[in-house]
This record gives sequence, C-alpha cells and structure tokens, in this order.
Amino acid sequence: MNIVDIINKKRNNLELTKEELEYAFNGYMNKTVKDYQMSALLMAICINGLSDEEVFSLTDIFIRSGNTIDLSMIPGVKVDKHSTGGVGDKTTLVIAPIVASLGIKVPKMSGRGLGYTGGTIDKLESIPGLKVNLTKEEFLKELDSIGMVICSQTEALVPLDKEIYALRDVTATVESIPLIAVSIMSKKIASGADKILIDIKSGKGALIKNDTEAKILKDLMIRIGNKYNKEVRCIISNMDIPLGICVGNALEVAEAAEVLSGRIKNNLYDLCIDIASNMVSMAKEISIIDAREQVIEAIESKKAYNKFMEFIVYQKGNIEEMEISNNKLEIKSDKKGILTDIDAYKIGEVSCKLGSGRLSKDDVIDPAVGVFLNKQVGDSVELGDILCTLYYNKVKDDFDIIKAFSIQ
Amino acid sequence: MNIVDIINKKRNNLELTKEELEYAFNGYMNKTVKDYQMSALLMAICINGLSDEEVFSLTDIFIRSGNTIDLSMIPGVKVDKHSTGGVGDKTTLVIAPIVASLGIKVPKMSGRGLGYTGGTIDKLESIPGLKVNLTKEEFLKELDSIGMVICSQTEALVPLDKEIYALRDVTATVESIPLIAVSIMSKKIASGADKILIDIKSGKGALIKNDTEAKILKDLMIRIGNKYNKEVRCIISNMDIPLGICVGNALEVAEAAEVLSGRIKNNLYDLCIDIASNMVSMAKEISIIDAREQVIEAIESKKAYNKFMEFIVYQKGNIEEMEISNNKLEIKSDKKGILTDIDAYKIGEVSCKLGSGRLSKDDVIDPAVGVFLNKQVGDSVELGDILCTLYYNKVKDDFDIIKAFSIQ
Repeated sequence: MNIVDIINKKRNNLELTKEELEYAFNGYMNKTVKDYQMSALLMAICINGLSDEEVFSLTDIFIRSGNTIDLSMIPGVKVDKHSTGGVGDKTTLVIAPIVASLGIKVPKMSGRGLGYTGGTIDKLESIPGLKVNLTKEEFLKELDSIGMVICSQTEALVPLDKEIYALRDVTATVESIPLIAVSIMSKKIASGADKILIDIKSGKGALIKNDTEAKILKDLMIRIGNKYNKEVRCIISNMDIPLGICVGNALEVAEAAEVLSGRIKNNLYDLCIDIASNMVSMAKEISIIDAREQVIEAIESKKAYNKFMEFIVYQKGNIEEMEISNNKLEIKSDKKGILTDIDAYKIGEVSCKLGSGRLSKDDVIDPAVGVFLNKQVGDSVELGDILCTLYYNKVKDDFDIIKAFSIQ
Repeated sequence: MNIVDIINKKRNNLELTKEELEYAFNGYMNKTVKDYQMSALLMAICINGLSDEEVFSLTDIFIRSGNTIDLSMIPGVKVDKHSTGGVGDKTTLVIAPIVASLGIKVPKMSGRGLGYTGGTIDKLESIPGLKVNLTKEEFLKELDSIGMVICSQTEALVPLDKEIYALRDVTATVESIPLIAVSIMSKKIASGADKILIDIKSGKGALIKNDTEAKILKDLMIRIGNKYNKEVRCIISNMDIPLGICVGNALEVAEAAEVLSGRIKNNLYDLCIDIASNMVSMAKEISIIDAREQVIEAIESKKAYNKFMEFIVYQKGNIEEMEISNNKLEIKSDKKGILTDIDAYKIGEVSCKLGSGRLSKDDVIDPAVGVFLNKQVGDSVELGDILCTLYYNKVKDDFDIIKAFSIQ
C-alpha cells in the first residue's frame, strides 16, 4: 500500500477500503503521510465525496485516534448538543440549564472560537472566576451533582480531528458534507452521551449554504449515529441574520440570562425552545408537544434560570462582576424604511475587530466588547434611529457596520 | 486576494483569472503559498480541469518563472522535438541527426530519467568523454556549426515546472491533461525553437492511457503553440510494448546507431521516420510524402549516420570506447507459440533494477547494463528459444522478466 495510489484512487472517484483510509489518516497522525499529500486527498474527497461505508470507516478511525469518555456510571439519560456555529450563537448557555432543570443530564464539552463565530468557552470566560478547565473527575462529579457541565475538553478526544481541521482550514477543504459529518459525529460519539441533538446552521453566514445540503448532512449524521446505537436528531436553523440581539462575549452571556428568565422572546428564544424540546423529547421519549410544554414551563417557573445560576456558582463564576464596556458608539440610520436584512457575517466581523474574537490563535479576547442590535429584521426604521450600539475598549471604529443593515 | 479563496474557486469548478493563477503559482515559487495549499489546488485542477484561457495564462506564468533562450541570431529554421516518455525511447538520438543532416537546425535540450523511462542525457553519458553540460555560448556555437545539439538545460528554464512536477509526483496529480500540456509547452517555448514536434505516447506504459486523451492533449498543445506563433505538430504513438529492441543506456545508443545506419528496421525505425518526416515537412514547408523521401534518403546515403558521429565527436565523445557488459543472462521460453505482447512497464522495471535507471535522485546509473529483446511481438517462439538477454554487472537476477512475455 502507498499513499500516492490511495490518493489516485479517490481522485478517480473510487471507493477506498477501511485499510486504505487507516493507512492515509493514521499515517498523517504519525507523520509518514505528508501534509501536502493529505491536502490532495482531502480535496479529492471534497470534490468526489465519500460513500456511507467510507464515512463509517473514517468516523471509526477518528474516534480511535484518541480517548473516549465513559458516562455509563452516571445514572440517567445523557443528552449532548452541538451546533455547526454561527454569529451570536449562545444557545448552549440557554439550552443546557433548561434541559438539566428537567432532570436530564447534559454533559457538554465546548470549544473556543476562531474567526467570526465565537466559542462557548470564550463566552463563559467573560464571567469572572468561572473555571472552564475541569479534570475528568470534576466533570463527572458535576454532571452527577447538578445535572449539567459546560467545560473545555477534559481528555484528548479525537486528536486527529484537530490535525485534519487545521489543514482543511488553510486548503479550502472545509466545505465537505462527509468531512463535516465525520468531524462532528466522531467528537460527539467519543464524548459518551446516549442521545445527540445537532443544530445545523444553514445560510449565507454558515458552512452549509442551503437547506438541500443541510438535509443531506442531517441524514448522514443520523446514519452515523445509528451505527453506534446513538439516537441523533437534527434541527436545521437559519444563519442569514445574527442569532439574538447580542454579539460579543459578556453581551451574549447577558442575553442568555435574559432569555432564560423569560424576558426576551426573539429568534434566539424560539430556536432554544425548539432545540431543548427535541432534547427533552428524545431523553424522556415523549412527544415534541409535551416536551415543549415542559420546556416553556421550565423558563416561566425560573427553574431553568436557577439552574443556570447554580451551574455558574458550581464552576466558581461570579456573574455580578461580569463587565460590559462603558464606551458606546451608537450607529444611526441614514434611511427610513423597513429593516429587511442584517448581514450576520458583517456583524460578526465587526465584533471580532472590536476585540471579541480572535483571527489567529494567539489573539487575546476582550470579553467586554461587542455589538448590540437595537433594531431587528422586520422593524420599521426612522431617519436617525439607532440601528446598533458598538461596545468598544481599545479600538474605536465603526468599521462601516451600517452596511450590514438593509433598509427598504 | 488570498490563496484559500483561490483554491475554493477552482474546487467549485470556476475559472481562475490570470491574476489569481499568478498569485498562486508565483506565490508557490517564493514560498508564500505552502506546498499543502498548492497540492490541494493541483488536485482541484486535476479533477475539474482548466479552460483554454487558464491554460494560456498558466503557460505564460511558467515561462516567465525563469530565463528563455533566444535563437534568432542563428540562421535557418529551428525545430525542436519532445516525447512524453516511454521504455526504450531513444528517438531523439536517431531523429536529431536525420533532420540536421537535411539542413534544419535541431536545438535539443534533454533531461535525465527518473523511474523506468530513461533520459536522453543518461543515454548519451554512456559514450565516454561526451560532454552534456554546455554553456549558452557553446550551445549556440554548436547549433550554428553542425546544425544540432543535444545537451542538458543550459539555462534556468521554467524552474516553476521543476518545483510543481516534484509536488505532482508525490500527490497523485501527474495525470492531468492541462497540467501536462502546460509543463511540456512552457519548456518548449522557453527553449526558443520556431517549430515543435511532440511525440505523445499513449498506452499501458504511458501517462496518457488511450488515444481519446492523447487527441485532447494534442489539440490543446497545438492551441498553446498558436498563441506563441509556434507551429506545433503532434504524433500519437503506441507505448504498450517497448520501443525497439534495446532497453538500457549503452544498449540504446548502439541501437540508435544501427537504425541510423539503416541496418535495423523495427518499430523504432518506423516511429523515427514518422517523427523526422513531420519535422522536415514543417521546417521546409513541404508535403509529408516529400519529406519522408528525404528522410529515408538521409539514412540510406549514411548522411544521417555521419551527422550522428559528427555530433558525438563535437561533444568530445568516443563511441569506440562505449561498453556493454560482458555478463549475459539469457531468458529462454518455456512455451511454444506466437509472441503476442511484451509488457513495456515490466521490461523497464527490470532494466532499472539491473542498474540502468534510478528510482531516487541519488542512484548512480550503470551504463553497461540493460535488456536486449531477442524476440519481438508477432514472432513465433519455440520451446527453449531465447526471449531476451539481460546484460548485468553487480546485480544478477532475472526479476521474473519472463512474465513480461505473452505467448499464445
């Protein structure tokens, strides 16, 4: 077996055996396959695709590249959740407390952000004192005690995914449905939950550009889950406009708390209800309608909000001390009409430039900055109305954010 | 402009602008584009192809990556020749003297071999004393004086091709018609001849597997030539069986001399007549039939053979001292019937293992070893007849060469 023949086979759109995939991907991990060879293979996969059999083999190779977590000693059903990422996406912070408050275990390991979409861990770190790095023992104890955890990865889960993702990122091989499915599902399966909810973002600001592709990804991830006896459900949600009204770390934590307390009912609220209901429906094996009633009740009764606070305190966070910058720049409309669109990508980009995200791994995040949307899609706008407010610290610039707003 | 967007565009099968191709390929030369990015782009090109406009732009970028040779001060028409490579291909050694003996200038820069197909320069070096490295001045003087030169590249012609070819070789991106066309034509155009003959090998042992692909490559190379006002003709020749009866360096020089002297009239002779006639027809603007008459007359009259000897002496070679090994291993048939096929690839492989070629750049060639084919396709074979003779030195092994012969 040699790597050039394997690349050639995929280039000619032939199916690779499990042994060939192992040779290529394990070889990449142990450096016998070079990065320029792996990138050629990844490009051939992107263009020619992978069969189901190849996807199952590759998921297995990914999982076996590192450790896996065994949650079987924790009583109850464990439900995990993943989102393919978007601007303003703080759903994890809202959903985990809702679902945990209903007696379901939510073991959630999250990542940091890179690029315009923030990571849940970065958001949590805007709460002073909050500990995001837990040992395996701390992780299991917290899950058992309060029913939820949100933390960084405790173990070396799927190290191959990290290596391959870094290469895909710089070789234009990110947008591949089978590679996206393998990346997500290998990590979710290695994390040990019984049931998995995936929120697939579809739209201009997302990896998946339209609902047809989203549907293909959904079906593929469900088939991978079946292979491992994991129930998988997928929500397909729009990512053309930002999720909610806040973009930026502390701002997003604040919005999550508002949604949990029932005071904000926007597109973020709707999506959180939808995702949480599906998780509860899976875990309790009840209808979506029944699950939805319980979810709304958890918010209205403040059970979910209290669980959120319990979680923050358990992980040593002090939300009272969380800071949002006092420096504000209000962006006013130079037009009158109806706000028909907000460009999620542009909003994410400006927030990132203000300091809320990192464009390279070494950038330091400023948790106190970001963008607050004073107007939302569908609102009528008068001349001089405030469209959005920029919270800034070191960088004072509007970065032409007004172009993100379409008013007609 | 950034390389990831450019790769992504080609991945999505869109046409790249000349500026984008320059960004990518010039960037690769000056190391701002990484090898793993170039290999991803090359794979996307292999699978999705290149438009004519892209091929023209890329040829131009290749040519401009190094020096070019100006032959305008040498009087007369200059005709160059290239073959896409095959086992036993010593056509350059036969054709250049024929064409030069008819008053046409043949400025031929050749390469060394890597893998099972030998290089003309390696073959010439089996003639003791023969100088293959010439200065630009020596090259021009010889061309002007005796009408032909065969030497290594005198200048840094198309260095980008060398870089890209080395990468293609290890990433399964060699078999791409537009990339093959760009590679060949950029070097031929940079070499400065007025007219160019390309011998496209098609068959099991060649890069181009069938005549349909060969025809596409042919038409594309003619269109590239037209862009540069160079007349280009292509021959498509079979590469399923070895060319001629000798494989190995000194053996091939000896066979070339035999063909030039008119004593051997095999498939090599036929192909050489065909190529030389096309070169003469182009250069003198006469019909192929008239050109063919002149070519055959050049052989029969020994003019071509004498030109070959003049060339060897001019470049300080002493053909009397050329050695073929005295150690012979005769391979006898264990079957009776008709010889229906000789596997060129297998013959090349055995010759290489005997020491006539190099599998890595540092291998040292033994000019005295190789394979002589005692029987040719179509011959009837008796039990115990000699099929071929291995000339060996250090390595005595038949490498199961008998498997290369199909007898029915």
